[in-house]
Amino acid sequence: MIDTLAARIRQTIDAKTKPLGSLGQIETLAETIALLQETTEPTMRNCTLVIFAADHGIALEGVSAFPQVVTGQMVLTFLSGGAAANVFATVNGVTLKVVDSGVAGKPMSHPQLIDRRLGAGTASFLTGPAMSAAQAQLALDHGAACAREAEGDALAFGEMGIANTATASALAHKLTGLPLADLIGRGTGLDDAGVQRKLAILTRAVARTGALTPQEAMAEYGGFEINMIAGAMLETARQRRVVIVDGFIATAAAVLATKLEPESRSAMVFAHHSHEAGHTALLNVLDAKPLLALDMRLGEGTGALLAWPLLKAAAAMMTDMASFEAAGVSNKD
Amino acid sequence: MIDTLAARIRQTIDAKTKPLGSLGQIETLAETIALLQETTEPTMRNCTLVIFAADHGIALEGVSAFPQVVTGQMVLTFLSGGAAANVFATVNGVTLKVVDSGVAGKPMSHPQLIDRRLGAGTASFLTGPAMSAAQAQLALDHGAACAREAEGDALAFGEMGIANTATASALAHKLTGLPLADLIGRGTGLDDAGVQRKLAILTRAVARTGALTPQEAMAEYGGFEINMIAGAMLETARQRRVVIVDGFIATAAAVLATKLEPESRSAMVFAHHSHEAGHTALLNVLDAKPLLALDMRLGEGTGALLAWPLLKAAAAMMTDMASFEAAGVSNKD
Repeated sequence: MIDTLAARIRQTIDAKTKPLGSLGQIETLAETIALLQETTEPTMRNCTLVIFAADHGIALEGVSAFPQVVTGQMVLTFLSGGAAANVFATVNGVTLKVVDSGVAGKPMSHPQLIDRRLGAGTASFLTGPAMSAAQAQLALDHGAACAREAEGDALAFGEMGIANTATASALAHKLTGLPLADLIGRGTGLDDAGVQRKLAILTRAVARTGALTPQEAMAEYGGFEINMIAGAMLETARQRRVVIVDGFIATAAAVLATKLEPESRSAMVFAHHSHEAGHTALLNVLDAKPLLALDMRLGEGTGALLAWPLLKAAAAMMTDMASFEAAGVSNKD
Repeated sequence: MIDTLAARIRQTIDAKTKPLGSLGQIETLAETIALLQETTEPTMRNCTLVIFAADHGIALEGVSAFPQVVTGQMVLTFLSGGAAANVFATVNGVTLKVVDSGVAGKPMSHPQLIDRRLGAGTASFLTGPAMSAAQAQLALDHGAACAREAEGDALAFGEMGIANTATASALAHKLTGLPLADLIGRGTGLDDAGVQRKLAILTRAVARTGALTPQEAMAEYGGFEINMIAGAMLETARQRRVVIVDGFIATAAAVLATKLEPESRSAMVFAHHSHEAGHTALLNVLDAKPLLALDMRLGEGTGALLAWPLLKAAAAMMTDMASFEAAGVSNKD
């Protein structure tokens, strides 16, 4: 007798016309989706990618290969359709939304830009908190609201923010206790000397505080866009919709989300194993195995966009593929 | 001055609004496609998967976990739309065609089934050649004809044939000289004893002959569907269309194709690193790095179907993504 949902889902998959287990990670993915939707007939029809953009005070300490002005320029590129995220979203039929979480400079005005600004970038966390406790909480709330406003059986969250790998590394260090050196990489293209400089600056920055609660850590070392992604992930999980977690920055946000609400982990699927050093360490913290490993390190949700067809395939496998019995195919002896 | 196509393609990719190299394997894939199509504006609009099905005399020696009758049953499942390949093809907008290359028993009659039968399965290559030299050549010709009749900027080739991992292992051993033990796996689900039995039988079978030319090897140890896939790959490459190479069996066919016409290699992209032991060895022979590694081992072209959206994304990156200059984005210092 089969009396649990998990067992019924597993039996449904095993009855399909294929050798047992032969669809590998697609089967695991189907199980995750079906368990979350509480059905043996899951649906993956539509997906929205919400890109949150913000600036980081730490950028002014020289931890990125690109100047801070690029954050706002890339927001305009998203809005005009010319970024990698736009191209991949179009190819895979994903809706794209862009949120100003707190880009430096004056507010941009564009009919398609969603305004959730919490300031003109965070303060540098080298010398003080990146944001106030109230701003940190507001970021979670804004992220949750953005998730509620986004349609889709699955939601993906991308990011744009010059220096946000530095923010993600410092935040993840405080949340997990992992050594900073294991969480730092080249970002958009630092050379060896640049990486050493980034490590030295972040080492000073994290020494500024002792042990922190997740709430304290996201104010001291968070980013407006990273915290909003965490809030969006939490709300999506509460709604029992699938969260597609992208690369290093988004995984840092996922670590924050699971520290705040551990049960949110069950809604998460992991899109792409980033080439950015540090991602592996965070994936291990979450016991996560991404679907793709294409040596990408762009952010913007590009990994999630490329993984979306795999989610559709996994759900369709459950609902549209014939069983041995229905197809009249002889099973293994 | 940029005076070669390869350099112009690389320059086009590097001018896009993203950190240099940050799209990883998608960039490599775009280069392959653009070089093949001889343009910096490649197109990947449509794809057809042709599944070739055939039976293998070696199956009767007990080298597979499933009975031979399953080959024909699965052909009917493809035709009725219930197999994994159908489901994934529908999700990703790929046209699917099914070819009877030589399934055991009487010919099946179905309006959608393409008849390229070369017999009711091959003979067992344990005691003599799998097929005649004339049949082997005819298989290449039939495969080429099927490729010419298939529409698509890219073509993928799937296979169905109980015991065809055994055939692929023996054929690949003769083509490459790699040890049989490195080329043998569980197929559709053999246990350890079954794998040992398969190895013992194939060891006897390959000892029957000495060194062989590729033409001799494909007659002595080939399969109707495997040889047709090789012929289809060769024709697709001659037409400068992309060949999406699926898993272990299809890669064995790709090895055969490149032994016959080495220049066909430049048209090939590799979809999925199969869980079937032996695939790694053949990928190394071809110096190939697959796009996906999802622990699948189903065949049918399922890996190629899941990889197709990545080809579309790579081509769209070349044509639809803005350059730093066009988008007015500041490049790295």
